Amino acid sequence: MEVYLDNAATTRVKPKVIQAVTMAMNEMYGNPSSLHKKGVEIERKIKEARKLISRSLDCREEELFFTSGGTEGNNIIIRGYVEANQRRGKHLITTKIEHPSVLSTFEALEKKGYKVTYLDVDNNGFISLRELEDSLQEDTILVSIMHVNNEVGSIQPIEKISKIIKNKNKEVFFHVDGVQSFGKILFSLTDLAVDGFSISGHKIHGPKGIGCLYIKKGWKVTPIATGGSHELGIRPGTENTPGIMGMAEAVKLIFSDQQNYIRKIASLKEYFYQMLMANVEDIKINGGDPQGTSINILNVSFKGVKSEVLLHSLEEDGIYVSSGSACSSKKRGYSHVLMAMGLKDEYIDSAIRFSFSDFNTKEELDYGIEKIQKQVNYLRKIMKR
Amino acid sequence: MEVYLDNAATTRVKPKVIQAVTMAMNEMYGNPSSLHKKGVEIERKIKEARKLISRSLDCREEELFFTSGGTEGNNIIIRGYVEANQRRGKHLITTKIEHPSVLSTFEALEKKGYKVTYLDVDNNGFISLRELEDSLQEDTILVSIMHVNNEVGSIQPIEKISKIIKNKNKEVFFHVDGVQSFGKILFSLTDLAVDGFSISGHKIHGPKGIGCLYIKKGWKVTPIATGGSHELGIRPGTENTPGIMGMAEAVKLIFSDQQNYIRKIASLKEYFYQMLMANVEDIKINGGDPQGTSINILNVSFKGVKSEVLLHSLEEDGIYVSSGSACSSKKRGYSHVLMAMGLKDEYIDSAIRFSFSDFNTKEELDYGIEKIQKQVNYLRKIMKR
Ligand SMILES: Cc1ncc(COP(=O)(O)O)c(C=O)c1O
Ligand SMILES: Cc1ncc(COP(=O)(O)O)c(C=O)c1O
Repeated sequence: MEVYLDNAATTRVKPKVIQAVTMAMNEMYGNPSSLHKKGVEIERKIKEARKLISRSLDCREEELFFTSGGTEGNNIIIRGYVEANQRRGKHLITTKIEHPSVLSTFEALEKKGYKVTYLDVDNNGFISLRELEDSLQEDTILVSIMHVNNEVGSIQPIEKISKIIKNKNKEVFFHVDGVQSFGKILFSLTDLAVDGFSISGHKIHGPKGIGCLYIKKGWKVTPIATGGSHELGIRPGTENTPGIMGMAEAVKLIFSDQQNYIRKIASLKEYFYQMLMANVEDIKINGGDPQGTSINILNVSFKGVKSEVLLHSLEEDGIYVSSGSACSSKKRGYSHVLMAMGLKDEYIDSAIRFSFSDFNTKEELDYGIEKIQKQVNYLRKIMKR
Repeated sequence: MEVYLDNAATTRVKPKVIQAVTMAMNEMYGNPSSLHKKGVEIERKIKEARKLISRSLDCREEELFFTSGGTEGNNIIIRGYVEANQRRGKHLITTKIEHPSVLSTFEALEKKGYKVTYLDVDNNGFISLRELEDSLQEDTILVSIMHVNNEVGSIQPIEKISKIIKNKNKEVFFHVDGVQSFGKILFSLTDLAVDGFSISGHKIHGPKGIGCLYIKKGWKVTPIATGGSHELGIRPGTENTPGIMGMAEAVKLIFSDQQNYIRKIASLKEYFYQMLMANVEDIKINGGDPQGTSINILNVSFKGVKSEVLLHSLEEDGIYVSSGSACSSKKRGYSHVLMAMGLKDEYIDSAIRFSFSDFNTKEELDYGIEKIQKQVNYLRKIMKR
C-alpha cells in the first residue's frame, strides 16, 4: 500500500487537471500574444481562468496575476512593493514562522538597508496582536504575515490583523502568504481586507510551476523582472498556458463543492488524530488543539524517536510523511518554526508532519496508524538500548 | 486546412513531451525536496534531465539552472550579474534588436544609474564588430547579445564576438539570449565561449513556463528572488517538475537527430522561399539572403499591403503568421528590429514573419503560397483604389 501523507509539501495532480494541461499543449498551443486565432483562443481561455480564480478569492480579475508559484508571488510583492515605495519608509514587519520564500526575502532586504521586525509566536504558533500593534512604526511600509503555517498548520487571524494595521496606518501594505490556506479555509479577500495575497497551484492538486498573486488595485509595485506586457507587466514572459489551465481546473474542482471538500479532509485528520491518540503513547501535538489548526495538517512529536529515522522507517512501509517542511528539510538543523514556538529540543527532534488530501481514505489511515504504532514502538525500544 | 507558420512565437508540444509532462503529474508528483521516495525519485529524474540538456549544450550539469522561461533567464542573468558586480563598473552593452525581455531590462537598469550602449545593426540585422570593440570601456561589466533574432532570424557571430570581448577584458561577462537558436543551430557552449546563455522550452515543442539558464562556473550572480535552496538558490521555488520532464523530452527529440531536424526545417523554408519568389511579385526579404538567416524564420515585406490586414486575411484561410514578433505585437507601433535595420516605413508596415517547424509539410506550404498569392493580389487591388 502507498499512503501519501505529505500533501502540504505537494499534492498529486487530479485527472481533470491533467486533461486541462494536456488540452493547452495539444490543441490550444498558441502564444496568447499572437494576433491570430491560435493566440486569441488561448487568450480567451486565460481570461476565463482568471475570472474563475478571482471569483474563488473574491477579487477583481484585474487584481489577479499569474505567477510561477508561491515563491515568486511572495518575492514579487515583497520586493516589488518595497522597491516602489522605498522613499516612504524603511521598516518592515513579518513573523518568525514564515516560509523560506518570505523569510529569506526579508533577510535580503535587511542587507539592502531595511529594518525588519520578526514577530514572535507563542507555543502554538500564533503571533501576539499586541506585539504587532506595538511594532508598527511611523516608517513601517509593509507587513507580511502568513495565513496558514506550512509546518504546524496554525492559522493567523488575518481579519483582525488587517484591522490593527489599517487602524494604525492605512498606508501600510499588508501581504499574506496564502499558499497553505487557499482552498482549505473558507474566506473572501474582501473580508480579509488584505492588499496582497499569494497562492500556488501544486498545493491544491494543480500543476507545479504556476500560482497567482493578488494585488489590490491602487498599490504601486515594481516588477522584479521586465519583458513584454504580459500580466500588465507585473509578471512578464510567455504565459504558462498549460499551467494556467490546470490551475483553473484545480480551483474549479475544489470550489464547486468546497464545503464538502473541507469536511472530508477535516474528518480524515480528526480520525487520524483520534486513532493516533488511542494507539500511540507519549506523543505531543504541535500547534495546539488540532481542531484549531488547518484541516489538512497535523504535526506530532514522538518522544524519543528521531523524526528522520521514523520518516525513513515509514517510507519502507510505503507511507510518506515529512519531518519539518519539505522546503527546508534538506538543510540540516532544526525547524525554525518549531524553534520559534519554543519547543524543547526533544520535541523538535522528533516532529513529524502528517498532511492530508481528499485522495486519502480511512483505509489508508488505518494502515498508516498500524505501521506508525509498530515503528514507533520498535524504534523506542532499540533507541533505549 | 490549418497551417501554423508562427513557430518562432511558440510551437505545438510534441506527443512524447505531453507524455513526459503527464507522467510527472500523475505518477511522480512528489516534491523533489521531500526526503522520502516520492521526493527522491523525481529528484533523480530532474538530475537526469539536467544532464541531458547540459550535454546538448555542452556544459556542466552544475552550470545549468531551470527557470520559468527565456524572459526569466534573461532577467536573472542580466539583473543578477549586474547587482552582484555593481562595484566593478556601471557600463553595459547590448543591441538595438534584442527581445523585449532583454531590452526593457536594460532600460530598467538605466533608471538605476547604469549606462547602456545599444549597438546598431546593419540593413540585414547584424551588429558591427568594430562598433562593439570600440564600445568596450574600462568600466564595462556585461555584454548581452542575442544569438538568433526572433523577428528576422539574423544570426550574430557569437564566437567572434566572444573573442573580441575577452581579448579586451576577460572580466566582462558575456550573456547570450539563445532562445531562438537552441536546437536550430549546431553549436557548443564551449566553442561559443560565452558566460551566460538562456533558452526556453516552448520554442522547441516543449511546454510553456520552463526554460534553462547556463551560468559558467565562477561568476557571481545575485538571484532576483529568494526562497529555498532549489537550483542552488539561483532560482528558488518548488521545481516545475512536469515542465522539466517535458523540456528534457523536447531536447531529446531534437538532439537525437538534430542534423536531420535542421535539414528538414531548412528545406521547408527554402521551398517556401522559392515558391514565394516565383509566385508573388514585389516582395522584399528582410534579413538578407535566407540561407544566411535562421533555418526556421523568413521575414517578408509585401509592398503595399498592411501586414496586419494580410495576417487577418490569411487567418481566414487557416494560415497563422506573425506581423512583427508575437511578444511585442500587442503594442501598436513599429517593430523596433525592422526600424533598427533602417527599413523604410512601407517595408516595416508590410512585414510578415513566417516561421516553420518540423510539424509543417510541403502540402501545407503549397496551400499557404496559393492563399498568400491570392490575398496579396486581392489586397493590392483594393488598396490601390
Ligand atoms: C506557506 C508557503 N509559502 C510559500 C510556498 C512556496 O510555494 P511554491 O512551492 O509554489 O514556490 C510554500 C510551499 O512550498 C508554502 O508552504
Ligand atoms: C529571442 C527571444 N528571447 C526571449 C524570449 C522570451 O522567452 P519566454 O517566452 O520563454 O519568456 C523570446 C520569446 O518570446 C525570444 O524570441
